[in-house]
Amino acid sequence: MLDKKIRRWRHVFKLDPNRMLSDLALEMICKSDTDAIIIGGTDGITYENTQQLLDRVRKYPVFCVQEISKIDAVVPGFDGYLIPAVLNSGDTNWFLGAHHQALKAYGDFIPWNHVLLEGYLTCNPEAKVSRVTKANTDLTVDDCVAYVRLADRLYRLPIFYIEYSGTFGDVEIVKAARSEVSSARLFYGGGLTTEEQVKTMAPHVDTIVVGNLIYFNAQRAVQTVAWVKKNQQRKKVKRSQVKKRQK
Amino acid sequence: MLDKKIRRWRHVFKLDPNRMLSDLALEMICKSDTDAIIIGGTDGITYENTQQLLDRVRKYPVFCVQEISKIDAVVPGFDGYLIPAVLNSGDTNWFLGAHHQALKAYGDFIPWNHVLLEGYLTCNPEAKVSRVTKANTDLTVDDCVAYVRLADRLYRLPIFYIEYSGTFGDVEIVKAARSEVSSARLFYGGGLTTEEQVKTMAPHVDTIVVGNLIYFNAQRAVQTVAWVKKNQQRKKVKRSQVKKRQK
Repeated sequence: MLDKKIRRWRHVFKLDPNRMLSDLALEMICKSDTDAIIIGGTDGITYENTQQLLDRVRKYPVFCVQEISKIDAVVPGFDGYLIPAVLNSGDTNWFLGAHHQALKAYGDFIPWNHVLLEGYLTCNPEAKVSRVTKANTDLTVDDCVAYVRLADRLYRLPIFYIEYSGTFGDVEIVKAARSEVSSARLFYGGGLTTEEQVKTMAPHVDTIVVGNLIYFNAQRAVQTVAWVKKNQQRKKVKRSQVKKRQK
Repeated sequence: MLDKKIRRWRHVFKLDPNRMLSDLALEMICKSDTDAIIIGGTDGITYENTQQLLDRVRKYPVFCVQEISKIDAVVPGFDGYLIPAVLNSGDTNWFLGAHHQALKAYGDFIPWNHVLLEGYLTCNPEAKVSRVTKANTDLTVDDCVAYVRLADRLYRLPIFYIEYSGTFGDVEIVKAARSEVSSARLFYGGGLTTEEQVKTMAPHVDTIVVGNLIYFNAQRAVQTVAWVKKNQQRKKVKRSQVKKRQK
């Protein structure tokens, strides 16, 4: 069950089938101590390049899921599938429309236990995904809180994913999400290149997603795994201390 | 918890705050053996007329929920709240936009255990709700199956509600929904005026919603309760017989 799997994810890498990655870099990423690889992107995603990248990742035992952005690029054989529901999109297609079309075409073949919806908040106005989905990225803390309530409380989605696509996000937005999330897992992605940035963001979320950095400094990208786990470890200790105090 | 309550609903009445109903007719409806009253509508719904209707219903011990269609007509004091997510709407407002705005304005005051989303399929092209939500009502059986998968499997919504608003629906569409629903409760509303029609529809759904009939023949509307329960009873007996056979 993918639900249970993602509860253990503290760090994941996101690989883009439309970007070049050397075998050496890929090996470093797959052999790192990351919890999973997500394969997905917005631009130029095809069945062929997704399949090729999956084949390359499959040489390693790492858990690998596809984040679906196009119906005709869905490749069988992943360990799971994440389906974004773009919460701040202005177009029904990105929340319901494409999903309905996909279910109409391929609904008989869906391994439901391996599929999860992501409540996806795209926050960088310059990002392709924001433009394609006609997203309202001009978000206040109150907007973010309302989106968390929408996704986590009302729709009861299993994942609330804040994505700043290549830019470092607003920590106040992320903290606001943390304070409101009740049962969803909180994912953050965007602009993580230094240990300081990871230290700033990681304690507030369940799962850190590292993407861009892989493509300009794979070695440093691998380091983010340790940075995240160091920070999340601290949080865990704190939580258990709190529990002890409550007893 | 509203989740558990709705599992026992086999018949509910839907009252429209914008339509006249005599005290006698209201008394008959509220003292019938129905499982709940839903208060809601599309046209001319205000805080005042909703509040007034709730006050009149509150003279009786019947369970009463509001189906929300307008933020500023939400009245505190109901036993629960149903929030439609119009699956076949062409406008994000009807499953995200208005919800986000409402949560931004009133999110702090929401009794989450008493709130449920309805995956709502509006099927009568002439109905006001279909026009307001810019709904695609030209639905095939395959469309319906895909909407069930979308609402019930992917979004895991607790209710899948097929509404034909005053016209008797396509039983093949309803049967298709029945065959696909896994955990959602299946609601049907629309054009039920005779025992024959109830017999046709009731065995395929969990909950029958009777609205229109109240306003032109309250006595007959009350009879639908017995008609529904008779048919659903039969189904129950059949199910237990099946279980015995399996033992």
